[in-house]
Amino acid sequence: MAKSRKSSKRPDPLAEERGDAILSRQDERTLERIYQLAESIVECAEKDSEPIFAIPARSLGNVSFNEEKRVLQMGAKTTNRELFNLSQAKSFMQTTLVAAGAKRLIEMGKTTSIRGLYYMLKHDIKSTKEPTFHDQGECDPIIEDCEVLLEALREELHLFADKRGDMVGNITIVDSGDEIDCSRMGSGGYAIPSIVEPSVIQFKECKAKFVLHVEKNTVWQRFNEDKFWKKHNCVLTHGNGQPPRGVRRLLNRLHNELGLPIYCLLDNDPWGYYIYSVVKQGSINLAYESERMATPEAKFIGLRSRDFARCGLSEGVKISLSDVDRKRAKQIAEYPWFVHKKDWQREIDDMLTNGFKLEVEALVSRSISYMTEEYVPRLLKEGDFLD
Amino acid sequence: MAKSRKSSKRPDPLAEERGDAILSRQDERTLERIYQLAESIVECAEKDSEPIFAIPARSLGNVSFNEEKRVLQMGAKTTNRELFNLSQAKSFMQTTLVAAGAKRLIEMGKTTSIRGLYYMLKHDIKSTKEPTFHDQGECDPIIEDCEVLLEALREELHLFADKRGDMVGNITIVDSGDEIDCSRMGSGGYAIPSIVEPSVIQFKECKAKFVLHVEKNTVWQRFNEDKFWKKHNCVLTHGNGQPPRGVRRLLNRLHNELGLPIYCLLDNDPWGYYIYSVVKQGSINLAYESERMATPEAKFIGLRSRDFARCGLSEGVKISLSDVDRKRAKQIAEYPWFVHKKDWQREIDDMLTNGFKLEVEALVSRSISYMTEEYVPRLLKEGDFLD
Repeated sequence: MAKSRKSSKRPDPLAEERGDAILSRQDERTLERIYQLAESIVECAEKDSEPIFAIPARSLGNVSFNEEKRVLQMGAKTTNRELFNLSQAKSFMQTTLVAAGAKRLIEMGKTTSIRGLYYMLKHDIKSTKEPTFHDQGECDPIIEDCEVLLEALREELHLFADKRGDMVGNITIVDSGDEIDCSRMGSGGYAIPSIVEPSVIQFKECKAKFVLHVEKNTVWQRFNEDKFWKKHNCVLTHGNGQPPRGVRRLLNRLHNELGLPIYCLLDNDPWGYYIYSVVKQGSINLAYESERMATPEAKFIGLRSRDFARCGLSEGVKISLSDVDRKRAKQIAEYPWFVHKKDWQREIDDMLTNGFKLEVEALVSRSISYMTEEYVPRLLKEGDFLD
Repeated sequence: MAKSRKSSKRPDPLAEERGDAILSRQDERTLERIYQLAESIVECAEKDSEPIFAIPARSLGNVSFNEEKRVLQMGAKTTNRELFNLSQAKSFMQTTLVAAGAKRLIEMGKTTSIRGLYYMLKHDIKSTKEPTFHDQGECDPIIEDCEVLLEALREELHLFADKRGDMVGNITIVDSGDEIDCSRMGSGGYAIPSIVEPSVIQFKECKAKFVLHVEKNTVWQRFNEDKFWKKHNCVLTHGNGQPPRGVRRLLNRLHNELGLPIYCLLDNDPWGYYIYSVVKQGSINLAYESERMATPEAKFIGLRSRDFARCGLSEGVKISLSDVDRKRAKQIAEYPWFVHKKDWQREIDDMLTNGFKLEVEALVSRSISYMTEEYVPRLLKEGDFLD
């Protein structure tokens, strides 16, 4: 937050821009922080002093693993962004622009993509040919700065990310006023939106006892076609590879608000490990959001290095590890949340010893529904997960 | 189809493998063709003659534009695939394997991804170390061969592709027995499945008067949030870039079965033109499926090269054309379905003269809802489309 600030007297010079959106409590909170930021600048101007933003540092050196909460967290380090500094004046201006853009979106009750915000804010600075942003790449880090500066998730700034990932199962939600029974969603499913905050999505009724999150939509289709979620009374989600923010936040909410355990069915390869790591502990780049985006209690239900032998898979399903795979696996083994876990160390060692990786789809070589009728049910019954 | 065949006496040596799936008429038809293919081999064996498949050629030279139907079509050229030919024996074997795999899937009433089929069929040939398929890349073209040989869409072989793309709007469908009211799907929407054949998806009720198909999910989110489909009584879809097969087939069915005009809101760049071309005329690689996948009557509602000036966009939204863009644009201008159309020739010329491209999101620089409240409504009202 800015270095000096006054409590909110709320000047509102842009009141005429407001739509008649009804603001949620969360929106009020975010707006309050944006006002405080603006007031800190005004205050400095009145005192003839330089306005400076103290922006929490998003560098790796300021990220640590909180052993107790078991999520990645940002430290207390901040970086000054100074208006009276030739190399920082432009990014100071950009920071206020992004904050002002978020204010407009919140007040209008609208949301946009980060691409949309970029276009919304891009213009030539008055009487110059200098654009506010040269390209999207200049805008994105400023958005992240604003997230940490305002202590607000991107979604709370009314910005949405790409959406991909679907849900079916024994749960009824309310999305923007529409009641959606996810047990009646056919073969397609409910498309998980990018913004799944409580202001948009409420949980109405949940009979499900757990969530099975699978990596790929093709695997999800197999589980849905076999009505796995009906037989095992669960919720079935996928995130089309590395799950986007909306899916991760939804898993977090399903776990924390409804108490559902989260089981992740991912490939037996470094990419599968990494996806698990992001779902569980958060992403290193975006450590400030971990507490609301990550689910430290999520379990890894497979695939495992032992499965080639244990499931009697045929030779043909092996995919040789590349040098990149080996390097990546060793890096992941060193992650603070894996390094002290014997089971994970053994798992990664086993893969390196095997010299091959396995995709979830490899289970099809046993039979088309082996994964839904035997593999996952057995592990669930035996409680045989990696943590 | 195979060169010699007998009408179906239906030997069924694998009857014990059958599940108790209830077969649709379509499934019966596809199975019938697979049986005929198998019988043609048996017949040859009984006559001591060589079994040969005559596979319709999927090469560019066998693709032409049908001016009357206005879709890409395959010609009559076929290529022989011979069992007694050292260089073809393996692909002959692979062709029968894929057909047998499809037979199993249909009889079980299950579907799988092309990845799943690959794993299902991959094994070492008895008493050898020779795998049936070395990798997925060896399996995919054989699947396409089987599609043309059996005159069946991939979906009819019970194979699904990646799914991406969502739908909302004034339409109620039945998906696998579940009734889904797409006007009550919140911010997320109904996730369009990969297989949307009538055996899976039926149209129950449709009040909508047209379909607006947009390129990107972020643009779709803007239109959904503004409830564009409610105000304009339409169906709103997206395909996350180039729409996958499920989305294209659904657009085709919405147009042909419900008579809904399809309007495509795509970027003003060669990629946007290409997406339009695929939706409208089909893909060159998969010309055999065009009649059921393409919608020749689909209209292009924008963005247009004139829009920079006409919509009063700011300098900053211009994205310079690259050399690849220019080359691609010139290739597209030569497509048989564009080459005689003055409007399209002018449109592509205009873009090349402009020297820049425009994304749909550039309209945000006017205002956040300019695209939903002004741009599209005006073009719809004026009937101002490219065809």
